[in-house]
Amino acid sequence: MEYEEPKFFHVMQYAAAADRDVIDMVSGNPDWEPPAALREALREYADLPPDAFQYPPSEGLLELREAIAERRSVDVDRVVVTNGTGEANYLAMARAFDRDAGDEAVLLDPVYPYYPGKVDMLGGEAALVPTERDGGLDVAAIREAASADTALIVLNTPNNPTGAVYDLDAVREVVEIAHAVDALVLVDEVYDHFDQTGRFESALTLDSDRVIVTSGFSKSMAITGFRVGYGILPAGHVGDAKTRHMLVNVAGPRPSQYAVHHALAETPPEYYAEARELLADRADAFTDALDAAGAEYSRPEGAFYVLARFEGFPGTMANVKRLVDEAGVAGMPGEAFGSARDEWIRFALVTPRAVEAAERLADYFGD
Amino acid sequence: MEYEEPKFFHVMQYAAAADRDVIDMVSGNPDWEPPAALREALREYADLPPDAFQYPPSEGLLELREAIAERRSVDVDRVVVTNGTGEANYLAMARAFDRDAGDEAVLLDPVYPYYPGKVDMLGGEAALVPTERDGGLDVAAIREAASADTALIVLNTPNNPTGAVYDLDAVREVVEIAHAVDALVLVDEVYDHFDQTGRFESALTLDSDRVIVTSGFSKSMAITGFRVGYGILPAGHVGDAKTRHMLVNVAGPRPSQYAVHHALAETPPEYYAEARELLADRADAFTDALDAAGAEYSRPEGAFYVLARFEGFPGTMANVKRLVDEAGVAGMPGEAFGSARDEWIRFALVTPRAVEAAERLADYFGD
Repeated sequence: MEYEEPKFFHVMQYAAAADRDVIDMVSGNPDWEPPAALREALREYADLPPDAFQYPPSEGLLELREAIAERRSVDVDRVVVTNGTGEANYLAMARAFDRDAGDEAVLLDPVYPYYPGKVDMLGGEAALVPTERDGGLDVAAIREAASADTALIVLNTPNNPTGAVYDLDAVREVVEIAHAVDALVLVDEVYDHFDQTGRFESALTLDSDRVIVTSGFSKSMAITGFRVGYGILPAGHVGDAKTRHMLVNVAGPRPSQYAVHHALAETPPEYYAEARELLADRADAFTDALDAAGAEYSRPEGAFYVLARFEGFPGTMANVKRLVDEAGVAGMPGEAFGSARDEWIRFALVTPRAVEAAERLADYFGD
Repeated sequence: MEYEEPKFFHVMQYAAAADRDVIDMVSGNPDWEPPAALREALREYADLPPDAFQYPPSEGLLELREAIAERRSVDVDRVVVTNGTGEANYLAMARAFDRDAGDEAVLLDPVYPYYPGKVDMLGGEAALVPTERDGGLDVAAIREAASADTALIVLNTPNNPTGAVYDLDAVREVVEIAHAVDALVLVDEVYDHFDQTGRFESALTLDSDRVIVTSGFSKSMAITGFRVGYGILPAGHVGDAKTRHMLVNVAGPRPSQYAVHHALAETPPEYYAEARELLADRADAFTDALDAAGAEYSRPEGAFYVLARFEGFPGTMANVKRLVDEAGVAGMPGEAFGSARDEWIRFALVTPRAVEAAERLADYFGD
């Protein structure tokens, strides 16, 4: 059995080995400070007695699950704390397939490459359905693709890589489609704190027993290495997800969960707002420079990626490597995200050098 | 699809809810101090710049993998750092089944309950083969059980729950059986630092392309909540395990890996020896008291569990609950570990109150 390995690491390794200065716009690692309370909690944890160093409950520290449940207005029993949002997505997908309700997952194109990788690993079949040109949901296309064999529909909003924030009404229509074909809808909301439109609404507000929402603290607290995410599952599915979590990982990391719990309680809204403003400023500067480079691009409504298209320079792995070598900027090839954006290259705004990178691109592609 | 959920949590919850003082001998959580260098590294980590808080390499921090490879005398490419030994076992089992070399796993009875749970979750069939009366390997019985449908044989040494330390020659014979039927052998060595016989030898010394060894730092550093384990796989299998690890968990927790790496470098052998001596003393005192209670028992050669059998009091869940209520001691029912020890109850020695527990048992069962 072969799995489709995401190409992120391949590009990052190529950029790291390059014989020149390269600005990394590949990885989705925030470059700003984590909450001060998180650092403080970690120092505090280091001095706790030995029993605080032992297994947390498999489903996560109760106080953290309660804090999540309160913020998300759901029953705490529905919350599973996972080893990052990645594991939460894995558990949700496994649950969808384990119901004997079909083998197919409807994924949107462009697609975050881990999704088809996980579907493949779980023995499912991925059906890629293109989004609208602007990255919005094409509900009619999803309706056409859904069938009795569809076990799962996966949405990600705010979206990586398009930056789209889905309308809740469109999400509701997708949930109705799922209901009609006995599928579950996984909504990955890991970028929920990075909505620049003010109109993002969680799919949890639909209050549907078809909807699994996943999220985490990797992006919002700038701690991708801590591995604290969560899934919120309908009552009929959460037990199986907890069991799989226990059998795969036993439990998640307690120092990380402890630190996140304290940071969640003590971090003011301004912390999140500052990161959003920083990213909005970078998006402005970066897209201004892309104008100078004569590129087409999407101005992100949320998350922190820009998709750009340079005439006569499609988003292949070969071209991305050329850009590393000749322009000193590393992006992700559009072809890594399905086939709908293979003309495009994705640039992550999580570097203080985003403006400098845009200038390099303007120099390289400009006349 | 239903998974067999381990019964640990059920007993622990029952004991916690009891209306009296109960000595917990259920969980395998060490009760002694973690290495001082581990606490110090965690404090140090809390002050590192934000980039140290982001994803470690998926397969683990390179410096940690190198330290493991050096101690285990293997090529570093063969090492995958996982979310605890539990994930390493899951990856190894998944790899064994993914080869299309059969659907069956040979497990030894008594068995650590997570093993059949994982096999079941992965769609495999568990075949339980009894060990010798003293917990040693019954090579002839394993040979008889192995067939073309056998994809995997799982060994755990030092053993939970029997305390047996397997002879390397017997392990070698099991590996030869695996070779003959195209199976892999997973050897879980998580208790390797708790060998009381001085004759434990890692299965890695067999240098076989059939052997996957897993271990971790949960027990040896008294940090079950940190989630740092590892798998050492043959070159032909390690790539698939790394990919599955990436698709399930993305990466393991970096604060934990950082702390373990420093503790591994800076902790003297005396730290591990002290824990072994503490456990040997507890085993002496506990088994002396079991003599007074008229119980049969196994004196552990390794790990930190004692199996005891009380005449007319089989190791059912009902009897374990009676012991909680009437004697104030919580153990694990032998029936949770397969069928070979369903007359027995397992007591974990990782409590400072082991002697007091034994006295309670002597009072309860004595004349």
